[in-house]
Amino acid sequence: MSETNPAFAAIDHAATQAHEAAPHWAASTANERARLLRGLADVLEQNATALIALANDESGLGEARLTGELARTAFQLRGFASAVEAGAPYAQIDDAAVPGAPPAGRPRLTLIQAPLGPVAMFSASNFPFAFSVLGGDTASALAAGCPVIVKAHSGHPALSRKVFDLAVAVVAQQGLPAGVLTLVEGASREAGAYLVRHPHVTAVAFTGSYQGGVALWRVANERPRPIPFFGELGSINPLVVLPGALANGVAEAAKSLAGSIALGCGQFCTSPGLILVFDDADGRSFTAALADALSTQSPHRMLTDSIRHGFDHAVGKMASHAAVRSLIEPREPRKAGDGSGAGPSPRLFEVEAATFIANSELHEEMFGPAALVVKVRSVAEVLQVLHAVEGSLTVTLWGVQQNTVDNLALIRAAEQIAGRVLFGGVPTGVAVTRAQQHGGPWPASTQPQTTSVGYGALARFLRPVALQDAPDWLIAVKRGGTSS
Amino acid sequence: MSETNPAFAAIDHAATQAHEAAPHWAASTANERARLLRGLADVLEQNATALIALANDESGLGEARLTGELARTAFQLRGFASAVEAGAPYAQIDDAAVPGAPPAGRPRLTLIQAPLGPVAMFSASNFPFAFSVLGGDTASALAAGCPVIVKAHSGHPALSRKVFDLAVAVVAQQGLPAGVLTLVEGASREAGAYLVRHPHVTAVAFTGSYQGGVALWRVANERPRPIPFFGELGSINPLVVLPGALANGVAEAAKSLAGSIALGCGQFCTSPGLILVFDDADGRSFTAALADALSTQSPHRMLTDSIRHGFDHAVGKMASHAAVRSLIEPREPRKAGDGSGAGPSPRLFEVEAATFIANSELHEEMFGPAALVVKVRSVAEVLQVLHAVEGSLTVTLWGVQQNTVDNLALIRAAEQIAGRVLFGGVPTGVAVTRAQQHGGPWPASTQPQTTSVGYGALARFLRPVALQDAPDWLIAVKRGGTSS
Repeated sequence: MSETNPAFAAIDHAATQAHEAAPHWAASTANERARLLRGLADVLEQNATALIALANDESGLGEARLTGELARTAFQLRGFASAVEAGAPYAQIDDAAVPGAPPAGRPRLTLIQAPLGPVAMFSASNFPFAFSVLGGDTASALAAGCPVIVKAHSGHPALSRKVFDLAVAVVAQQGLPAGVLTLVEGASREAGAYLVRHPHVTAVAFTGSYQGGVALWRVANERPRPIPFFGELGSINPLVVLPGALANGVAEAAKSLAGSIALGCGQFCTSPGLILVFDDADGRSFTAALADALSTQSPHRMLTDSIRHGFDHAVGKMASHAAVRSLIEPREPRKAGDGSGAGPSPRLFEVEAATFIANSELHEEMFGPAALVVKVRSVAEVLQVLHAVEGSLTVTLWGVQQNTVDNLALIRAAEQIAGRVLFGGVPTGVAVTRAQQHGGPWPASTQPQTTSVGYGALARFLRPVALQDAPDWLIAVKRGGTSS
Repeated sequence: MSETNPAFAAIDHAATQAHEAAPHWAASTANERARLLRGLADVLEQNATALIALANDESGLGEARLTGELARTAFQLRGFASAVEAGAPYAQIDDAAVPGAPPAGRPRLTLIQAPLGPVAMFSASNFPFAFSVLGGDTASALAAGCPVIVKAHSGHPALSRKVFDLAVAVVAQQGLPAGVLTLVEGASREAGAYLVRHPHVTAVAFTGSYQGGVALWRVANERPRPIPFFGELGSINPLVVLPGALANGVAEAAKSLAGSIALGCGQFCTSPGLILVFDDADGRSFTAALADALSTQSPHRMLTDSIRHGFDHAVGKMASHAAVRSLIEPREPRKAGDGSGAGPSPRLFEVEAATFIANSELHEEMFGPAALVVKVRSVAEVLQVLHAVEGSLTVTLWGVQQNTVDNLALIRAAEQIAGRVLFGGVPTGVAVTRAQQHGGPWPASTQPQTTSVGYGALARFLRPVALQDAPDWLIAVKRGGTSS
């Protein structure tokens, strides 16, 4: 491989290590995989105080949030360990031979799941634990039997290195090849593309911006042999407030939604960025209460200067749109890099449904503590707005509890554009469980038929292989109980 | 949409019909889907004599083969009906709520499978029933709840129209919207690209050549919102003859393999095109017996003049390679279009392993009754040859029944490049069952984690959606038992 960029040699080294470790890790037993995943969870918890302090220094996300995030990351590693012990990556379908001529007659076929091989994992800025070195992508790839090459995020380099060093010690202590988990550092786009293009890389997991993700997705598709690229690119997460949802007042609902919009300074891929509210007395009262509740939020500083610039730009563009009304003026004209260390003022905007539908620039995500209220006048108009939104990770529907024609139409429209549909509550917070689906139609995900959170995530790194008339000993080996 | 090509208007019409039928078909019950699939199987069988005669006129594949293929197509439609009745497209994972704070505490999550919407299905030339209008892609998409827009293959236009007309009558008789199954005709590349680009199309299923498939895959990826493209592009299907496999003689094995190479004039995507034979006495004897057995085969004419030209070109290129030895000279210098109506002479070539590995032009598929014998001297060399081959639908291993280190290495190498690994027999013939995997790493398939044959094929047209705290009535509706 070429050596024109100093990062390339490090990538070559990591990819070669991962490639060499791949057969060993692919043949590992359920016990071996579970032991590694639990060991990684333990080492995170044992070093929680130091790691959280370091994470807070680098991200500014706050100790409370980071404490919860570390706990979630350890929970997730152990959850994948349990999924492996329950046999998830070793699942087989065994169809007995049927004597006679085809089509009814057939040989014995046993469907197994083969690990893809080394996975390049691009960390996210906004979850320095849960979507970084030992986050969900790493846990699910390791559980599937694939070595992981972590691309550290430049937003938390010291934390990435520290977590990686702790993990390396666990890998070594368990006698596993070093190539099971490797780290590459440096933020250049060229290095990222070089990693995706590397012949030893067999799949990519990415969480980040649309621009960055799509650029790397193209690189993956332009390889001589394209590889799967599992990109989670964020979304605007529409939330629909139907009139019936406000029958018991607007205050609590508005407060809860404002908290979700401002949570983590709005730096969640599930942050609700588009609020559909009916243009009636209750709806107007709800919008006013939402603006009040949101204006009292004081978000912490954003993760990086670049994210802050992006937020200021997106908000400025929205505010300058002739048909958009600003419902909260910024408390002070603070800009990125003013040295105050504080976060941006939350923002709320409002627009008519017809204007929203006709102007695709209003459909873009404002990554940060801001949302756009769309005033609607009918269920038909709600359907049109949802249809105009492209793919989204979530759609939240408040007030569709009854089985009616209108509600079914709303639910179907929500399902068509989202990976997760909520029937109450707020979309921030993604439970780690078997039934989770974190991934929606393009542009939310590059592979919307897969999930990046929950135990289904490990299926991304397995490829079905049918064994025709295989010997019994091989089928037993493939069940994960014994090492080959 | 633009109207510059007369085929475009027909595509617009079909896509609009499919789009309008999509919500109805997505909400259909298991009984409704199974009734349609069984009705389509019945109508094929009821018209078998006329359909087989028409198929033979257009394809030249012969009545015996076409009789079997029609039976397989009907079997497949009924098999998908049974899969639907067993609940495959309505499968749910229901995780109960857990009280308490995250990460252990969680809402109720129910994972359902949402049909993608209209599927554009590109028929193959080589299976005028089983991979055409009512073939596996159509059956699996309908079973998943997706309308199908069939792109008829120009190799059998009258058969396509006739089968479609019979199917339309079944759709109408069952009171279903016409858009559940539509047909577009005409062979132009522009029309194919227009169909893939159509905003109402949500996924593509394609069986055909690498060049044609990759061109349309690019179109799918260049849409404003890319869509899944399930392309099955063919492969060279290595078959490894280990010395132990010849202990009982070479004659029967050679005869069986020759039959597989020449079957259907070699126009199967699973036709064994690369035979790895050890350079020892048994191996040389096997190769000689294979050449003998193959030279006595008399394949029927090829499907189209274009396929015949492609075969002549590929065989000529192989024959002219300085390091390749021709083991069967063509019986007569017949060329495509000579008016004789007969097929090409079968061909067999031989090359050293090192030459094969070093020359990627020798790895290309010769679509037709031809194969390349690669002489190997060790298991290590077999592994190198398999590694040099890119993705393949199948790898066949003769003589790996024992649990040895060498055999495990061979099996792992085979799994890495193939979707199906055979432990005996020949790769032609693909059983329709749950455990089937018809799809291998690139370039065999564009989405190697999916299958185009077997009941797993319907998962290609479903997208998981998590319902968070959904009402019970909705979860019941999504189980497919009652129409919504």
